[in-house]
Amino acid sequence: MEIRVEAGGRVYPVSVTMRTPGHDFELAAGFLCTEGVIRSRKAIERIGYCTSGRQPQHYNIVTVRLRHDVAFDPLRLSRYVYTTSSCGICGKASLEHVRATSPPALTGKPQLSDGYFLELPEVMRRQQATFARTGGLHAAALFDPAGNLVALREDVGRHNAMDKLVGTLLLSDRLPAAESVVLVSGRASFELVQKALMAGIPILASVSAPSSLAIDLAREFGMTLVGFLRDGRFNIYAGE
Amino acid sequence: MEIRVEAGGRVYPVSVTMRTPGHDFELAAGFLCTEGVIRSRKAIERIGYCTSGRQPQHYNIVTVRLRHDVAFDPLRLSRYVYTTSSCGICGKASLEHVRATSPPALTGKPQLSDGYFLELPEVMRRQQATFARTGGLHAAALFDPAGNLVALREDVGRHNAMDKLVGTLLLSDRLPAAESVVLVSGRASFELVQKALMAGIPILASVSAPSSLAIDLAREFGMTLVGFLRDGRFNIYAGE
Repeated sequence: MEIRVEAGGRVYPVSVTMRTPGHDFELAAGFLCTEGVIRSRKAIERIGYCTSGRQPQHYNIVTVRLRHDVAFDPLRLSRYVYTTSSCGICGKASLEHVRATSPPALTGKPQLSDGYFLELPEVMRRQQATFARTGGLHAAALFDPAGNLVALREDVGRHNAMDKLVGTLLLSDRLPAAESVVLVSGRASFELVQKALMAGIPILASVSAPSSLAIDLAREFGMTLVGFLRDGRFNIYAGE
Repeated sequence: MEIRVEAGGRVYPVSVTMRTPGHDFELAAGFLCTEGVIRSRKAIERIGYCTSGRQPQHYNIVTVRLRHDVAFDPLRLSRYVYTTSSCGICGKASLEHVRATSPPALTGKPQLSDGYFLELPEVMRRQQATFARTGGLHAAALFDPAGNLVALREDVGRHNAMDKLVGTLLLSDRLPAAESVVLVSGRASFELVQKALMAGIPILASVSAPSSLAIDLAREFGMTLVGFLRDGRFNIYAGE
């Protein structure tokens, strides 16, 4: 699916992703949020599939029209690509990019017990409807401090699952998601920590390993990062 | 790490990937092979880290210098990116791209028993040295028809692990890898099937799910695709 931004009367292609169809508008809105383009639903005037004249809709192209008073710098996203490809993607450039997007301060980090975390994977698994049928999709799930599942999204790509989740929260005016925990089904990558950070989620838990760069990012911004949350145990890599 | 191609006296940046350091030259050579740029070691004159004057080497930039008689079209790689982003990456464009690279015919597919496949994951796991320490790396392993491990490579990215494996085979003149089986540690993506195909590997096995597009590709080119190879069972999705 291609994501386009319409701003100031012009249309800019900003991303192409191999995704599982479904929650396409949430994916587009969430991507723009986690990449630092928009902060709230108010920035969006309209989201729609691409249409050209009387042709059928293109269900692989989603255009997000920004409100006229929203600042949009089409070079900022491409500049990041340029920066990283000129030095080889390195941790330094990646961390600087996140700093430049000024993520919201993480507030309202709840105090949670060991038992709280140990319950989460089973709750998530029971709600992974497409995974249950295919064994092939990632998921991202948001929980409140009482352990209730707030929302869950699935996608063949773990980053898309997170973007769909964040987009769902954004479109229902629930960002920043303070006082919450997000659980992801795969490893904790740098990008997943970055996306949770942009959504204001103070705690990220993963059933598998974090990358060293993900840990660096979580520590710098005060996020709690939990890894290997499975089989009745977990590690805390940041925000102890 | 950035991969560059030097051809006809000019240098072209062709890819940037977040990788685990180690086997960098194999990664570069393997990437160029699996993307259809080169077919054998003879196409390569030299592989080296980037140097600029008396500065220290840049260990995040690898340049592959092609022999003067090797045809290189710098537009072909970028054209693929353009094609896919103009229609949204879709299965049709992806399959057409693979057809355009004319992968070698898959020859010498061995006849193997159920028991052969069931043994592979444990053999691979015992050799995943970095995974054993971190729990966070993917692997790709090549086996011969007797079940002997030929080579194994690890990387934080599953596509890089495959490229490192293919590059290892290419640089030791062992391509196309007929009469062999490659086992991957994660899901069987379209890109992994494509890369195995370019290396002439007739059988790909995965411990997890294949994507529908990966199955389409394997069936079109006569590759045998095995999935969910774990816990004493597996499924055959193509090439029964």
